[in-house]
Amino acid sequence: MNKWNKRSRPLRLERRFEFPTYELTRDFLDRLGELSEKRKRFPDVSFGKTYVNLTLQPESDENDAPLTADDMNFASEIDDLTETE
Amino acid sequence: MNKWNKRSRPLRLERRFEFPTYELTRDFLDRLGELSEKRKRFPDVSFGKTYVNLTLQPESDENDAPLTADDMNFASEIDDLTETE
Repeated sequence: MNKWNKRSRPLRLERRFEFPTYELTRDFLDRLGELSEKRKRFPDVSFGKTYVNLTLQPESDENDAPLTADDMNFASEIDDLTETE
Repeated sequence: MNKWNKRSRPLRLERRFEFPTYELTRDFLDRLGELSEKRKRFPDVSFGKTYVNLTLQPESDENDAPLTADDMNFASEIDDLTETE
């Protein structure tokens, strides 16, 4: 979790992942897609050949919703996706 | 090609694609990944649950490189990826 940056307006967590090859970038995106479907959470993703930037917003759609333990857990699960490399 | 917006500084083509479901969004991203590997071109991509934003820059890395016929063809090939829906 320590590699995620917390930003405000709107409140969100951001993290950049870098990969040596496009193949590894796509492997990560595939795992992220599976996790997203499992958790029914669909973060905003930007990627290029060797990087992925992720933005996680609080699960609640309400204004000023705080980041919850569920949000933090989801971020940690994303971190775990890189451990197979 | 007419749905791509040409922007400057830096010169680029942008297009937004929208999909009714996350599954169709991922199908498109999978096809885009295959095309990217085939053409060895890796555009910047942003996506969420039901949209994909694409940015294509000129294939040449040189400053002030123009958009070429190859760039336009690549954009058209991306357009064709949505035709199976």
